[in-house]
Amino acid sequence: MNINSDTFRFTPANVRIVGAGLIGTSIGLALVQKGVYVEMVDLDLKSQSLATDLVGGGMNGEPSLVILALPSSNLDDVLQREFHLNPNSTFMDVGSVKTEVVLKVSKIPALAAQFVPTHPMAGREVGGAASARADLFLGRSWVITPMPTTDAKALATVEDLIALLGASAVTMSAQDHDAAVAKISHLPQIISSLLAGQLSGTKTDWMELAGQGLRDTTRIAGSDEKLWKEIIHSNRQILSGLLKNLNEDVIRMIESLDDPSEIEKILAKGRSGRELIPGKHGGKAREYSYLPIVIDDKPGQLAAIFNQCSLLDVNVEDLTIEHSPGQLSALITLALSAHDAQKLSDHLASIGWNVHPIRN
Amino acid sequence: MNINSDTFRFTPANVRIVGAGLIGTSIGLALVQKGVYVEMVDLDLKSQSLATDLVGGGMNGEPSLVILALPSSNLDDVLQREFHLNPNSTFMDVGSVKTEVVLKVSKIPALAAQFVPTHPMAGREVGGAASARADLFLGRSWVITPMPTTDAKALATVEDLIALLGASAVTMSAQDHDAAVAKISHLPQIISSLLAGQLSGTKTDWMELAGQGLRDTTRIAGSDEKLWKEIIHSNRQILSGLLKNLNEDVIRMIESLDDPSEIEKILAKGRSGRELIPGKHGGKAREYSYLPIVIDDKPGQLAAIFNQCSLLDVNVEDLTIEHSPGQLSALITLALSAHDAQKLSDHLASIGWNVHPIRN
Repeated sequence: MNINSDTFRFTPANVRIVGAGLIGTSIGLALVQKGVYVEMVDLDLKSQSLATDLVGGGMNGEPSLVILALPSSNLDDVLQREFHLNPNSTFMDVGSVKTEVVLKVSKIPALAAQFVPTHPMAGREVGGAASARADLFLGRSWVITPMPTTDAKALATVEDLIALLGASAVTMSAQDHDAAVAKISHLPQIISSLLAGQLSGTKTDWMELAGQGLRDTTRIAGSDEKLWKEIIHSNRQILSGLLKNLNEDVIRMIESLDDPSEIEKILAKGRSGRELIPGKHGGKAREYSYLPIVIDDKPGQLAAIFNQCSLLDVNVEDLTIEHSPGQLSALITLALSAHDAQKLSDHLASIGWNVHPIRN
Repeated sequence: MNINSDTFRFTPANVRIVGAGLIGTSIGLALVQKGVYVEMVDLDLKSQSLATDLVGGGMNGEPSLVILALPSSNLDDVLQREFHLNPNSTFMDVGSVKTEVVLKVSKIPALAAQFVPTHPMAGREVGGAASARADLFLGRSWVITPMPTTDAKALATVEDLIALLGASAVTMSAQDHDAAVAKISHLPQIISSLLAGQLSGTKTDWMELAGQGLRDTTRIAGSDEKLWKEIIHSNRQILSGLLKNLNEDVIRMIESLDDPSEIEKILAKGRSGRELIPGKHGGKAREYSYLPIVIDDKPGQLAAIFNQCSLLDVNVEDLTIEHSPGQLSALITLALSAHDAQKLSDHLASIGWNVHPIRN
């Protein structure tokens, strides 16, 4: 759900962000750009000072919203203290596992109406205020797992905040959230770390042969283990089942190594799984038609093609450009609906463009 | 080892490339830029036609070098035929597993002196001539696993070719090569596919929460299973041992889920392994500036932006389009030189576009 800016009613004027890490500081940066008064606080004074310098701003009265952007192990203490300091504020957290938080907050009845559990689906493998960026949440989903006790105004305040940061609020149960992130975030983190762990002791001259595949599959293995041990431990019950399934598949692969057709089946299952990751417009990756066009690598060529698209009322869903320094031609590939691809292909070919339609 | 261009003595004037896929066509693109005459051939005439259009060129006499850029299952037949057609040429392959090829070629004594087994450490998860790029090998390692029978002139020809493509020749035994790529390339491929396979049956609204971590770890799961089943099967003996090690570590993680300090140790081992991967080794890490622009998701918006790029003589190096579920706006991010990014950003902002320059 995306709230149109006309409908912002509860946009907080003063926001206190407790936790000056990547997420907290990124929220701060984005809010200040939108004219919200922001105060960054952190137990670590160096982090607080860096975040405050980066974000600028400063509050102008009592906080209407307190955002808790810190590891779940610190949440209890901080939450009690912040509630004591700001008894009339709305509170939200941004932690990666939600059932545990919901359980904790339910035990503080006075707070339960003002607290909104959330989780922005955004992050980087580098942490800290220094890695923060105002556009971290642009176009991302931001999960809200409301409690039965959460009141409507607190919820509306948080929804407004999410819209203000350019993200899309997605409401689901804490249980569903934790099962979903176990599969799409926590399991990939564990597997990336286990894979990277296999590199231990590898000769340097072998490592020098490493390519992009190894770099991509192990990128998130560079993440902070102190942060992740908490997330994995919090979600251990669901992860145990997922790791057992994966392990069965590892064993199946070992047993299939003598049989290329069995190997192919396992790899094909992986490719199908990969295709479930949404492309544009959400949902299952749409079936686009791809239209490759060889162009001269000079300014004006793309504009010329897009002008033809405009003339024909053709909507370009995505675009890749393949070219390299010194290469005189470039290949652009447009992702289009099947109908638009046909129309554009015929038209561009008729006026002399070097089009290479892929017929399926 | 990198050969200075002054020392090229055996640079082939005419190269016949058999196999118009990603690797073959990329070699063709790069060679034509260097003034080499190239002929692209493929059993599939559509691929051959696209590759020939992209590469341009055409041979000017007999090939001094024949490059076999095709799946190992087709290598036998094609090699025999090509050797019959061009008995005086040097031959090289570019396959991912080397012991098997060395064994095959050793059985054709007449050919064994002219054949050089090689493997460029470069590739993409997308295949085919359409994905080819001339800079694919720039700064990459290119392994040569010479046979005892390979003659010096054939070897020098191939070393010259590798230097000409901007890659670095690395000589090692076929056995060492196969052990190294098992760990740094084939194991990551299998693990990425197994991880992506776990997504099977996941609800669409859960998949919509997927972030960059899942996309990166499963990117190579999108690779062609027909190509990879051959590679994995060819290297099955080494892979079996590596998969058993991984299996033990998955079990250790399952058994550690109740103990955050044990989880931390496993993750820390992964982070150390990740740190063994050399830094920006490849020549492909270009320093672009990224300019995010929020646009309405309708025809004509891209054309309007590219027309402004044309007016300012700004060259767009790459472009991504991000679109969230249900959102009426889209985020496009242009990759530009730092100078062009600044110029375009200022200009677009001044005429009312919703530009989000990233402040570092």
